[in-house]
Amino acid sequence: MCRWMAWRGQAVLLEELLFNTQHGIVDQSLHARMGAEPTNGDGFGVGWYGSRDTPGVYHSVAPAWGDPNLRELAGHIESPLFFVHVRAAIGSPVQQTNCHPFRHGPWLFVHNGYVGDFGAIRRDLMLAIDPGLFEELRGTTDTEIVFLLALTLGLEQDPIDALEQTVGVIEAAATRRGVTPMVQASFGVSDGTDLWAVRYATSGPARSLYASADAEAIRHLHPENARFQRLTPDDRLIVSEPFSDLPGVWNEIPQGTAVIVRRGGVLEHTPFRPQAARPTESLQRRTA
Amino acid sequence: MCRWMAWRGQAVLLEELLFNTQHGIVDQSLHARMGAEPTNGDGFGVGWYGSRDTPGVYHSVAPAWGDPNLRELAGHIESPLFFVHVRAAIGSPVQQTNCHPFRHGPWLFVHNGYVGDFGAIRRDLMLAIDPGLFEELRGTTDTEIVFLLALTLGLEQDPIDALEQTVGVIEAAATRRGVTPMVQASFGVSDGTDLWAVRYATSGPARSLYASADAEAIRHLHPENARFQRLTPDDRLIVSEPFSDLPGVWNEIPQGTAVIVRRGGVLEHTPFRPQAARPTESLQRRTA
Amino acid sequence: MCRWMAWRGQAVLLEELLFNTQHGIVDQSLHARMGAEPTNGDGFGVGWYGSRDTPGVYHSVAPAWGDPNLRELAGHIESPLFFVHVRAAIGSPVQQTNCHPFRHGPWLFVHNGYVGDFGAIRRDLMLAIDPGLFEELRGTTDTEIVFLLALTLGLEQDPIDALEQTVGVIEAAATRRGVTPMVQASFGVSDGTDLWAVRYATSGPARSLYASADAEAIRHLHPENARFQRLTPDDRLIVSEPFSDLPGVWNEIPQGTAVIVRRGGVLEHTPFRPQAARPTESLQRRTA
Amino acid sequence: MCRWMAWRGQAVLLEELLFNTQHGIVDQSLHARMGAEPTNGDGFGVGWYGSRDTPGVYHSVAPAWGDPNLRELAGHIESPLFFVHVRAAIGSPVQQTNCHPFRHGPWLFVHNGYVGDFGAIRRDLMLAIDPGLFEELRGTTDTEIVFLLALTLGLEQDPIDALEQTVGVIEAAATRRGVTPMVQASFGVSDGTDLWAVRYATSGPARSLYASADAEAIRHLHPENARFQRLTPDDRLIVSEPFSDLPGVWNEIPQGTAVIVRRGGVLEHTPFRPQAARPTESLQRRTA
Repeated sequence: MCRWMAWRGQAVLLEELLFNTQHGIVDQSLHARMGAEPTNGDGFGVGWYGSRDTPGVYHSVAPAWGDPNLRELAGHIESPLFFVHVRAAIGSPVQQTNCHPFRHGPWLFVHNGYVGDFGAIRRDLMLAIDPGLFEELRGTTDTEIVFLLALTLGLEQDPIDALEQTVGVIEAAATRRGVTPMVQASFGVSDGTDLWAVRYATSGPARSLYASADAEAIRHLHPENARFQRLTPDDRLIVSEPFSDLPGVWNEIPQGTAVIVRRGGVLEHTPFRPQAARPTESLQRRTA
Repeated sequence: MCRWMAWRGQAVLLEELLFNTQHGIVDQSLHARMGAEPTNGDGFGVGWYGSRDTPGVYHSVAPAWGDPNLRELAGHIESPLFFVHVRAAIGSPVQQTNCHPFRHGPWLFVHNGYVGDFGAIRRDLMLAIDPGLFEELRGTTDTEIVFLLALTLGLEQDPIDALEQTVGVIEAAATRRGVTPMVQASFGVSDGTDLWAVRYATSGPARSLYASADAEAIRHLHPENARFQRLTPDDRLIVSEPFSDLPGVWNEIPQGTAVIVRRGGVLEHTPFRPQAARPTESLQRRTA
Repeated sequence: MCRWMAWRGQAVLLEELLFNTQHGIVDQSLHARMGAEPTNGDGFGVGWYGSRDTPGVYHSVAPAWGDPNLRELAGHIESPLFFVHVRAAIGSPVQQTNCHPFRHGPWLFVHNGYVGDFGAIRRDLMLAIDPGLFEELRGTTDTEIVFLLALTLGLEQDPIDALEQTVGVIEAAATRRGVTPMVQASFGVSDGTDLWAVRYATSGPARSLYASADAEAIRHLHPENARFQRLTPDDRLIVSEPFSDLPGVWNEIPQGTAVIVRRGGVLEHTPFRPQAARPTESLQRRTA
Repeated sequence: MCRWMAWRGQAVLLEELLFNTQHGIVDQSLHARMGAEPTNGDGFGVGWYGSRDTPGVYHSVAPAWGDPNLRELAGHIESPLFFVHVRAAIGSPVQQTNCHPFRHGPWLFVHNGYVGDFGAIRRDLMLAIDPGLFEELRGTTDTEIVFLLALTLGLEQDPIDALEQTVGVIEAAATRRGVTPMVQASFGVSDGTDLWAVRYATSGPARSLYASADAEAIRHLHPENARFQRLTPDDRLIVSEPFSDLPGVWNEIPQGTAVIVRRGGVLEHTPFRPQAARPTESLQRRTA
């Protein structure tokens, strides 16, 4: 299990959301409430969009709750769009190259969940990656392969469509190898402008995923909350689990659903349905 | 909070006690049951007596549950007397020099608990350390200072007496500075031959501490348990919390008590009562 | 041995000076030319002034040449005044709390060199630190104690005067303990507005230290160099060793000298002479 | 560049060879003399045979010269056959999964050198690995792929033959992809009984490699050297570069040569000639 968060809105100091909340993502590294495991102490990562085309990433193998550099960076880096991911490793080593977010050009990618029987299909999935992307493979997580597969299948043109195909490819690979297909996923993706998130499980309940309510609604519900009064219509959070117990602030994203967060805090929902793998030629990476 | 364990008995591979138990110390790094905090992920340490006079120590800032080197070492190092300590840092940095066990010559020292208002009396306590021991101060924990104070006050001659004085000095220092004295402690000490453990709190309940029952009693109680049948009369464990829920295997060490484990699995109990600080001249380290 | 650099001038991305130079500080971590040792691989640190009163610091135990986070941060953090320090540990452990720069409020401090026979006088020097500053002691370097002593002796009012007294106190402590006094030092200090640097050795040659020439002079000397043409009159570098072999760009700071860099690129020189320790009462920290 | 050493002979404490020599492998991590680079500070590894079938490994991302755990382990682990490898990363991340020695069952493998244009042929080489071995791929070095390829091609039956095929496969893959074939290699391999070493370069001078002379010869040459007098006929060292400048102690292994060290200190030489890749069926792993 892991936990992640994404912010899209006005530029804020990272510490506002990492440390200055009741049950923020750093607290979730030690005390998650909604997962199989309360502890997400196997490294973490931050990816933020700043003044450059390429987002910055900071990866650490230390638990997020105890890394003094994270406090420093969170107190000095301001960003209108960023991800934070705290990791609970299941099988793959605790090393920076296995920390999310993963990056490709302006794209960032995070994942909470797992690919079932990954060992049995890892090689098949690696072969399905566009050879031109193969050199970017630096770690050993299922997530990194999911990301490179999605890039192979057109993430840069249509993230949700590409992820639907990716999940389809993975489930088909499992079936082919005689293991039970299982993709457990909340995915987060951004190109620095928009933000996409997916909640999906091949079977059974999917990992939890929430979106913050409209900024205006939150302000009206909690007029006494000074922080909330600073929210602008552009502000939106996507989180593995809520940062607080306040009513009306968090809306669960339904299972089998993708959401898109656009400028102005717009939050769109769309069904997420894995697509059967397309013919081999589509496994060449589509470039714009 | 922290958790620790000590083994004294037949030589065993460390992994027997670290990994091949129901709820051993490595499991306690992730899921402690009896402390204020379930997670002890801020580094760990192993100290073991081998063929040399000086014990070996291995310190790591990684959580014990995820350090691949610990599995390797535990699978290859065999010892008749060793400590393992998993740390939950409260204030002091996560660094190897803050990991237990601390060592001085053949002596090892571990601690679960804390010195209350440590910042207010840290300087006073450091001044009370024998200047000849001062160079050994390498980290910034309260525990290291407790150990150097105890060495100053005769640990090498009489560990329990020295620890009683040490606690007395600390409590008096707090009173002098106008803060409420509080020593929360389970201590573990060894010279490679005997093993001492202390359970004490200035006020309120002390940190939990258990000793394993007599080997023979355990074997008779659980004749079906193959591991227990390999126990010899020499074997004894002292642990912050039990490794299993099996009845008759673990005995709580009463608060305000010190125990000594000697050859043959002998377990002696003695009251632990802080002593008023002796005159200044006794603050020079007594050497045999 | 260590190497450090300080920039004061227009806001620049850190990478401009860390990576995009011929022989910058990161290259010096692997291939220093002017020290007893070419390798400065025992951790590093960055301290930068941003939009807050308190500067940010990033400390790492990895060699600077191999830390991927340093490249990320240097590519995204822009600052008009920052320090970078690469460390070659001599005796004290490689841990973040021993990495420079050290910080106190808005002040940053770096040091290349050492205090001779530090073990013999460490305790005396610690006792000379204002007790109110004692809690800030987090690591085990001589440098941190030098900094806290200088704060005790008025660094916040007059950095050079306080450092002259500090060196005097250290040399006197050594003499009192019967060891040969030796302070080897290039110091760097800033409050976020001005920048002070000191080059001094009790005896023999001091650690190397250089200041960049006037921006205008550099531009005229190297009209073909596009980077130099972007220099403004406000820009000034202080470095342990030059970033390039270009003539006319670097001026050695004479031994026994302090320099002050002020707004407008002003560079003032003043002699640096250790002061005999003042009466005990002056060892209480002067507060403005 | 990297440096490695292998010992086969009487059981010795690792520290005898790691620390108690004039220019041992730990010194070479900071001051190598015979490579393109003097610094091998990007992590290290130790692999040793003990009382178990499977050797132990210890991997660290810290420079070998500064890791306090290495001193501890070297002072307590005794072994008749062990490898130490200090790494200078060229491209691949500094992480434990990229540290040598690599292990498969009782086999250990180390490498100094590189596969030229690795990025261009990495995918092809990964595809050539027996799918049954694919799950063992945990890092991102060329060396790990070389090892898994060699296992695919029969390393467990005939190490030198398998390595000759492996190099042949790599060189052919490069030619196929239109890049210049280049395998720069000193390889070390063991199964816990024998020790194999290879010195080879596709073109130009190969990485340096030396074997220690016969123990008896060394004792006669240096009768005044107490350490040498403790050598037994069984003892043999293979090293990237000599541990001392003493005449008659070290013999260069000729380029294009493999050596085998067997019980009794026997040292056999045999030519090492890459073999053209065998038909596809041979790319299935041969199992005994």
